[in-house]
Amino acid sequence: MEGAMERRFERELQALRERLLAMGSLAETMIHKSVKALVDREDALVEAVLAHEEQMDLFAIEIDDRCFTLLALRQPMASDLRFLVAGIKINGDLERIGDQAVSIALRARSLITQPQVKPLIDIPRMATLSQEMVRQSLDAFVRRDPDLARTVIEKDDEVDNLRDQVFRELLTYMMGDPTTVLRALELILISRHLERIADHATNIAEDVIYIVRGEDVRERGDKELKKGLRHPAPKRTGGERTS
Amino acid sequence: MEGAMERRFERELQALRERLLAMGSLAETMIHKSVKALVDREDALVEAVLAHEEQMDLFAIEIDDRCFTLLALRQPMASDLRFLVAGIKINGDLERIGDQAVSIALRARSLITQPQVKPLIDIPRMATLSQEMVRQSLDAFVRRDPDLARTVIEKDDEVDNLRDQVFRELLTYMMGDPTTVLRALELILISRHLERIADHATNIAEDVIYIVRGEDVRERGDKELKKGLRHPAPKRTGGERTS
Repeated sequence: MEGAMERRFERELQALRERLLAMGSLAETMIHKSVKALVDREDALVEAVLAHEEQMDLFAIEIDDRCFTLLALRQPMASDLRFLVAGIKINGDLERIGDQAVSIALRARSLITQPQVKPLIDIPRMATLSQEMVRQSLDAFVRRDPDLARTVIEKDDEVDNLRDQVFRELLTYMMGDPTTVLRALELILISRHLERIADHATNIAEDVIYIVRGEDVRERGDKELKKGLRHPAPKRTGGERTS
Repeated sequence: MEGAMERRFERELQALRERLLAMGSLAETMIHKSVKALVDREDALVEAVLAHEEQMDLFAIEIDDRCFTLLALRQPMASDLRFLVAGIKINGDLERIGDQAVSIALRARSLITQPQVKPLIDIPRMATLSQEMVRQSLDAFVRRDPDLARTVIEKDDEVDNLRDQVFRELLTYMMGDPTTVLRALELILISRHLERIADHATNIAEDVIYIVRGEDVRERGDKELKKGLRHPAPKRTGGERTS
C-alpha cells in the first residue's frame, strides 16, 4: 500500500516536471518572438507574444496548484519538499520571464513604426543567450544536474557584458544625434529586459544547486533540513562601465 | 501534549513574523539611504547601503532556514502551509528590494561626482512611496489584512505615473543637451529600480490577499488546498507613454 502511494507521488512529481518544462519552452518562444518582432519589424509577432501571455498565466496557475496540492496532501519530507518549494519559485521566475518578453514586444511595437537607429547585433545575441539559459536551467532542474546549472550561471556574465556594450554604443548615438534619443532609450530598456530574463534563469540555476546540495547532504546523513533553499549573495546590477 | 506542540509552533510562527518585519524595516532603510545619498550628494550614505546589504543577506539565510525547518518538521496544513510558503516568497522579494537599493546607491555614487542635471523632485517621491509600500505590505502580511494589501496595490499606479513623468522630463533634457545624456540615463535607471521595488511590494501585497482568501475559504469548509498561492495576471511594464 505504501509502495502504491509512493509510486503515485512519483508520477505526480513527474507530471509536475513535464509541465514546468512545457512552461519553460513557452517562455523561450516568447523571448524569441519578441526579439524577432523587433529585428524583422513584424507586428504579427508582437500579437503572438501577447497571446502567449494568456497561456503563460494558465500555466502559472496550474503549476502553483500542483505544487501546493502535493505539499499539502503528501506532506513530503526533505528533498521532495525542497523540490516542490523550488517548483513554486521557478514557476514565479518563468511567469516573470513571460512578463519581460511582453515588455520587449510592446517596445518593439512602437519601435518598428520608426526608422531604425542602427542594425541590431548585440540584442539578438542577448536574446539567444538568455533563451539558452532558460532552457538549460530547466534541464538542470529536471535532471538535478548542478554542472549544467553552473554553466547557466557563468553565461550570465556574457549577458551582462553584452548589456554594457549595448549601453555604450547607444549612448554614442544619443549624444551624437538628439533625434535618436527616444529610440535608443527604448533599445537600452529592451537590453535591460533581456538582462532580467537572464537573471531569472540564473535564479532557477541557483535553486537547482541548492536542491542538489541538499540531497548530497542527506546522503551523508547530515541535518539537511536546516539548509533551506536560497540564493547566494546578489550580484551588483548597478553601475555599468560606461566610460 | 498536542496543546504544547501547537503553542510552540505558534511561538515559532510569531518569531518568523518578527524577523520578516525586521528585514522589511532594513529594506526600507536601504531605500531611504540610497536615494538620500543621491539627493544630499553624500558618499557616506552609499557606503551605509553597501554595509546593510550584508545584514540583508544574513536575514535572508536565517528566514529561509526558519521557513524550511517549520515546513519540514511541523508539516503544517492549509493556512499555516500557505503562510510559510508566502514567507519564503516574501523573503525573496525583500532580498531583491535590497539589491535594487544597492543598485541605486552605486548609480548615486557615480552621479554625485558630476554636476546635477536638475533638482530632484519625482525620484524622492517615488522613494517615499515605495518605502511606504514595503512597510504597509509587511504590516498587511503580519496582520493578515487584505484591505491594507489593496492600498499597497493601488499605490503602485502612482509609482508608475511618477516613473513616466521622470522619463518624459529627462528625455527633454537629453534631447536638448547631449552632455546630459549619460547622467539623465542614470536617473531614468534609478527610477526603474524604484519601480521594481514597488513591484516587489505589490507581490507581497498580492500574497497577503491570497493567504487571507485561502483562510476565508477554509472557514467556509471549501477545498482551499486547491487554490494555491499565486499572483494575478502581470501588469504590462513596457511602453510608457512618452509622446
